[in-house]
Amino acid sequence: MASLPNGAAAAAGGPSGAPVVDKEVDFANYFCTYAYLYHQKEMLCDRVRMDAYHSAVFRNAHHFRGKVVLDVGTGSGILAIWSAQAGARKVYAVEATNMAEHARELARANGVQDIVEVIQGTVEDIELPEKVDVIISEWMGYFLLRESMFDSVICARDRWLKPDGVMYPSHARMWLAPIRTGLGDKKMEDLDIAMDDWGQFVGETQAYYGVNMNALTKAYRAEHEKYYLKSSIWNNLHPNQVIGKAAVIKEMDCLTATVDEIREVRAQVMLPISLDGARLAALAGWFDVHFRGSKQNPAAEEVMLNTAPDENGGTHWGQQVFLLTPSLSVSKGDNVKVSFSMVRSKENHRLMDMEFTYELHEFSGKQHPAVTTKMYLE
Amino acid sequence: MASLPNGAAAAAGGPSGAPVVDKEVDFANYFCTYAYLYHQKEMLCDRVRMDAYHSAVFRNAHHFRGKVVLDVGTGSGILAIWSAQAGARKVYAVEATNMAEHARELARANGVQDIVEVIQGTVEDIELPEKVDVIISEWMGYFLLRESMFDSVICARDRWLKPDGVMYPSHARMWLAPIRTGLGDKKMEDLDIAMDDWGQFVGETQAYYGVNMNALTKAYRAEHEKYYLKSSIWNNLHPNQVIGKAAVIKEMDCLTATVDEIREVRAQVMLPISLDGARLAALAGWFDVHFRGSKQNPAAEEVMLNTAPDENGGTHWGQQVFLLTPSLSVSKGDNVKVSFSMVRSKENHRLMDMEFTYELHEFSGKQHPAVTTKMYLE
Repeated sequence: MASLPNGAAAAAGGPSGAPVVDKEVDFANYFCTYAYLYHQKEMLCDRVRMDAYHSAVFRNAHHFRGKVVLDVGTGSGILAIWSAQAGARKVYAVEATNMAEHARELARANGVQDIVEVIQGTVEDIELPEKVDVIISEWMGYFLLRESMFDSVICARDRWLKPDGVMYPSHARMWLAPIRTGLGDKKMEDLDIAMDDWGQFVGETQAYYGVNMNALTKAYRAEHEKYYLKSSIWNNLHPNQVIGKAAVIKEMDCLTATVDEIREVRAQVMLPISLDGARLAALAGWFDVHFRGSKQNPAAEEVMLNTAPDENGGTHWGQQVFLLTPSLSVSKGDNVKVSFSMVRSKENHRLMDMEFTYELHEFSGKQHPAVTTKMYLE
Repeated sequence: MASLPNGAAAAAGGPSGAPVVDKEVDFANYFCTYAYLYHQKEMLCDRVRMDAYHSAVFRNAHHFRGKVVLDVGTGSGILAIWSAQAGARKVYAVEATNMAEHARELARANGVQDIVEVIQGTVEDIELPEKVDVIISEWMGYFLLRESMFDSVICARDRWLKPDGVMYPSHARMWLAPIRTGLGDKKMEDLDIAMDDWGQFVGETQAYYGVNMNALTKAYRAEHEKYYLKSSIWNNLHPNQVIGKAAVIKEMDCLTATVDEIREVRAQVMLPISLDGARLAALAGWFDVHFRGSKQNPAAEEVMLNTAPDENGGTHWGQQVFLLTPSLSVSKGDNVKVSFSMVRSKENHRLMDMEFTYELHEFSGKQHPAVTTKMYLE
């Protein structure tokens, strides 16, 4: 035997028939990732992320001064400490993992232990002694919704935010764009190598051990096609890889969004190509979030956290690349019609199953047949 | 946020206070690894493993001819198919994951579908219509006991093996040996780099974001020392890295072993050094298992599966390297006294927590102070 160490691939799903959300499984698969300082540091080193939240808080200190704040998933406690430094009267910093202890230490070491109260637990379970003026949280996963952590922010908001309270961030958007990339060729090559290797294995197992493994060839190919071609790929793209106009496929007001609204995302967009003689090899997905305060309490200065391709360097979120096989030859003036749907994986509600249908409408008027492909964000 | 994809590091443990064995967590963390054909193939390509089981079965076909066999954790079904090919009247092949479906296909494709009955479930839960003559299983994890899968074999044996039944394998041993390796220097360097990097991070976070992170330096170092120095390292060693005599630290008769007997392993051994002017940088751990049949039903030909360092190439189990910091200068004639204990990790019963105490007794009579270190097999 010898299973992979450190449970690699564990999040790929429980057994069929498992309940959709088992709390203990969720802890073992999800929360524990955030119990490592190594991982906290990676997020704390993301300058784009840090700058956005830092600016959002300190340039809008009027939202914090004398106010009560709730930080959902405080991790190392950074947002809670900033909230205190910006003048909050009280900050409840909720953290499910043992990282809570470190957040407590950090608050103490930064002299805000009387303001920041770290509460270890899930926001669904804990109780607060009062309603709050601000909910701050860094809840965004890959392609915004991976991890499904915004569910917890919604729960916190519905339980604890005052009627005139403010959400940090206040708005979020998901984007889709046509891109060129060599990743697909590389993955196709990897798949070919894997299948050649399998072919040799089948021959050898028959020759040495008298067992015909060919019955599993189809399943082996399916497993590997899913892995190489149908799993979205993390990448920090260069802006010149984007060969057309990006489109918003989802907009969310964090003050009013519901779990029903994010459990399933559907969109149909037209992506205009802006480059001649290009190969449309993939679509890329990313997100941005905005700090605008609320209608009643607008921001003094609006701040945006953007994870789009950026030549000055990326974020730890990067972008998600969804390979198109086959790729398409496109030219300036063409349009690609994309129908997109995303639902949560049945086996793990924090992962996403997607379906893309793409259809090339040439500038000349020629229309190509639609291609539909499944894609997995794991 | 953005947690690691595919739940890397997930098996590192549930939240404190979680029950020791939660079935759903266990599935998500452990069994699912075996649901990938990719992983099955890796085991099926391990020639040392395959040759040993193949020889054990076919050179002892008298144990199988006309008999009833139970395969615990059949995976792709290979051992069940061999048992049928060796003449078994009936083979019950138990598999917890969806790999069961592939095992069924494979049995069909190899014409033994009337003999091999694949049952999807855990051996703790399933029912058989009869007792069995042979239990065959490939249950060994890294350093023999990682994964704690032998518990399930014991359960199967106590529930279903006839009084004169035979275990395949019949015996198992764990070994410990003194070795030389550069791995420790490399890991120490990695730790230094990680801590330098942390130092810079602390400075920058203070300068740019007004938060003093120094309170977490100690915890960060502890986390990284555990990761780099106190986690055992998978390696396929060359025999000339072994600088003394290996010692058996555990022997097990699979016919009589109990869970109590393997839940905790303790040993005290003396390891004689056989190389002059060597540096004892680590201890290495491995195992072997034997196919000897039983007293009443001895093997016609005894077979051994050995995972010791081998210049002709290793197994997918490799060996586990336990770094000694500090390392010791040793010479021929010296002895290293090692006290070893291993218990299951509180957070995940399939992982192991170890403690080593090592003490150099020089040939000259000079005795060095004992050093005690914890070590984790994850």
